Amino acid sequence: MRAEILTVGTELLLGYTVNTNAAYLSQRLAQCGVDCYRHQTVGDNAARLAEALRDASRRADLLLITGGLGPTVDDITVRTVAQAFHQPLRYDARLARAIAGQFRNRRLRMPAVNRRQAWVPRDAEILPNPLGTAPGLYLRLPADASVADRACCHCFLLPGVPSEMQAITEGSILPRLRRWQRGGTIVSRTLHVVGAPESAVDQRVARWLRLRPPVTVGIYASAGQVALRITAKAASPTAARRLIRPVERALRRGLGPLCFGADDDTLERVVGQLLVRRRATLAVAESCTGGLVMHRLTEIAGSSRYLRGGIVAYDNRVKEHVLRVSPVLLKRHGAVSRPTALAMARGARERLHATFGLSVTGIAGPSGGTVWKPVGLVYIACAGPRGTRCKTYRLIGTRRLIKWQASQAALDLLRRQLLKQLA
Amino acid sequence: MRAEILTVGTELLLGYTVNTNAAYLSQRLAQCGVDCYRHQTVGDNAARLAEALRDASRRADLLLITGGLGPTVDDITVRTVAQAFHQPLRYDARLARAIAGQFRNRRLRMPAVNRRQAWVPRDAEILPNPLGTAPGLYLRLPADASVADRACCHCFLLPGVPSEMQAITEGSILPRLRRWQRGGTIVSRTLHVVGAPESAVDQRVARWLRLRPPVTVGIYASAGQVALRITAKAASPTAARRLIRPVERALRRGLGPLCFGADDDTLERVVGQLLVRRRATLAVAESCTGGLVMHRLTEIAGSSRYLRGGIVAYDNRVKEHVLRVSPVLLKRHGAVSRPTALAMARGARERLHATFGLSVTGIAGPSGGTVWKPVGLVYIACAGPRGTRCKTYRLIGTRRLIKWQASQAALDLLRRQLLKQLA
Repeated sequence: MRAEILTVGTELLLGYTVNTNAAYLSQRLAQCGVDCYRHQTVGDNAARLAEALRDASRRADLLLITGGLGPTVDDITVRTVAQAFHQPLRYDARLARAIAGQFRNRRLRMPAVNRRQAWVPRDAEILPNPLGTAPGLYLRLPADASVADRACCHCFLLPGVPSEMQAITEGSILPRLRRWQRGGTIVSRTLHVVGAPESAVDQRVARWLRLRPPVTVGIYASAGQVALRITAKAASPTAARRLIRPVERALRRGLGPLCFGADDDTLERVVGQLLVRRRATLAVAESCTGGLVMHRLTEIAGSSRYLRGGIVAYDNRVKEHVLRVSPVLLKRHGAVSRPTALAMARGARERLHATFGLSVTGIAGPSGGTVWKPVGLVYIACAGPRGTRCKTYRLIGTRRLIKWQASQAALDLLRRQLLKQLA
Repeated sequence: MRAEILTVGTELLLGYTVNTNAAYLSQRLAQCGVDCYRHQTVGDNAARLAEALRDASRRADLLLITGGLGPTVDDITVRTVAQAFHQPLRYDARLARAIAGQFRNRRLRMPAVNRRQAWVPRDAEILPNPLGTAPGLYLRLPADASVADRACCHCFLLPGVPSEMQAITEGSILPRLRRWQRGGTIVSRTLHVVGAPESAVDQRVARWLRLRPPVTVGIYASAGQVALRITAKAASPTAARRLIRPVERALRRGLGPLCFGADDDTLERVVGQLLVRRRATLAVAESCTGGLVMHRLTEIAGSSRYLRGGIVAYDNRVKEHVLRVSPVLLKRHGAVSRPTALAMARGARERLHATFGLSVTGIAGPSGGTVWKPVGLVYIACAGPRGTRCKTYRLIGTRRLIKWQASQAALDLLRRQLLKQLA
């Protein structure tokens, strides 16, 4: 099955909106084993949309169209699709009642314009939208006589609002695709790596990066983290996973503790799971990360079980009064130093009565650096029942990037301490 | 000038990467007054790329192509463009030396594959890439005889790595576009609104939303914030700004203190500026936002001037021992209550010796809610030299969204207190 995605909206062509809908639909198509050959975006312009529609329906067996299904005059997709494929519009009374019902349920008066949304192409099937008034639509377009090898083009129309588009896709489109697509599926599994640069990861797993289909491995770097994506194409998800398993095992063996998780795992979630397994609690003292470490840890539901709290000690007085870092030590070594990092970790652990204390102190920039203590210099310490550990980092990038990388390094140091104590 | 953008890369069609390059280039084109009529994405496949190239160059005066300029065999853009427009490839010895020099500067050995990047289409002009080895390329394609009204199609090839693509665009493409495009420009200005839902903002500014070109106003809602974008098309940026100014004034009058800034302003930056003007310092006590308020405030360079620090008081003991909230009060009213929020704000202010203390306590969910204190219930308090203020919110959404909206509400409460005290 050859698919194309057509997104409609002038806001995309002006760059006000990033086209996340095309990425979402592409992922879903790949999971169903459907090859997507092209994305196209046109504005709210009937002539150009009609041209794009004709071209795409000539090439593709499956056409996903998003955007332009709203109630206003700018929303031209339904009308243009109907015209391009010679279908009159019909008024669907049941759909009209469903739309009116949505307004009643929310105790709102229905604006007259919403009545427009009940006009649909004659042969269109209506796909319910649980989150909004614009329904999804499904049309089977007749085969182009010039293309011998296919019976028809399946055409789905979806609203542009991401949550509504996704709800209709999950509810009404993916079940059909899975039924049509007994031919195969693409499954991928991503391993997440922290604590080594991309080139070092590359060296460790070089031979696996050269694998050829049906299983391949790709390497992708982002700030403070590297991902290895294993992708397999097979007749069924089970068969694909069977291809992935030995490769994943080999990669994990090669990476050792550098690999902290897979797929949806984040460093903050994995650290949380380790704290739960260890029945341990955590207190955090942050300087240059300014609350980012705690913010990340508290994104995890249930983190109140193991998080005592955190201190953002921007001012030295906070380090002294709240964390009880000695003023003599601060004066002798400075706020950005190994002794201060260690004292902050110990202070957080003791003051907040936690099993572990984690601290970050450094210079996030852009100003505040010196020759001896440049922007990007960061000390990270972890105090636990079996003593303390401190590591020094020299990070590169903007203020935002340095904060992020420092938070990665802090969570990783804690993770390694927890792994050791569980071993 | 009619432009199209063509992005090349299988990772886009698989949904692994979101097409931010198309959005970036579209924004820049709009700023230069160039109309962009279409985006297309194809994979690393020569036949489909060639077809897309031919179609686009037939329609557009300006064609921006990104992706597929790397050194590996997957990178087919240069070769395919050369073939599609009947140009032989030539080896550019100067470019080869420049690429080798980049490796020498970084003290790395140049892999043999990078030599491939010195082969370019015969008539291509080389656009320097300050950040990588793949140069930008500029080609003037001959006019299609069937299209009467244009002399040629200007075609730019750019690497897919966003930073490199942007550097070449800013350095080599935009100056040309501005020269060619003396016909006009599009300027936009965005006003940011907080503290009212989209429908309420809509009502206040309804008549301005109905403006017709050359000046228009659009309304866009996101979590906890609404944006009003004023867009003007005119012969020059100065003329466009002259059209925008009276509309901006009228909108600001209609919005009053709901409008907190424009364009790149964020709530954390505006609050920081107010604190500096007021010569005031700030301490934050967070419960359900878990460090997010401090993280946002510390994203601003120079925030150490006015931030004393923050306490993330997840555990009640931290509220008692560090913030000195009375255990009796905590027991009587609970951690999520108006008295606790007030005591936390006062505690932060006093313990960290700041002019203002800001506190957030609430239930971020998904669990922990009760009938009387449901998920999304949030109390926000601000303690300052002229007394304290507390507001109650009932927020809706996921844990992440509730944290975000609570951080918006907290920064906004502080902003309004600061505005009052400056008045």
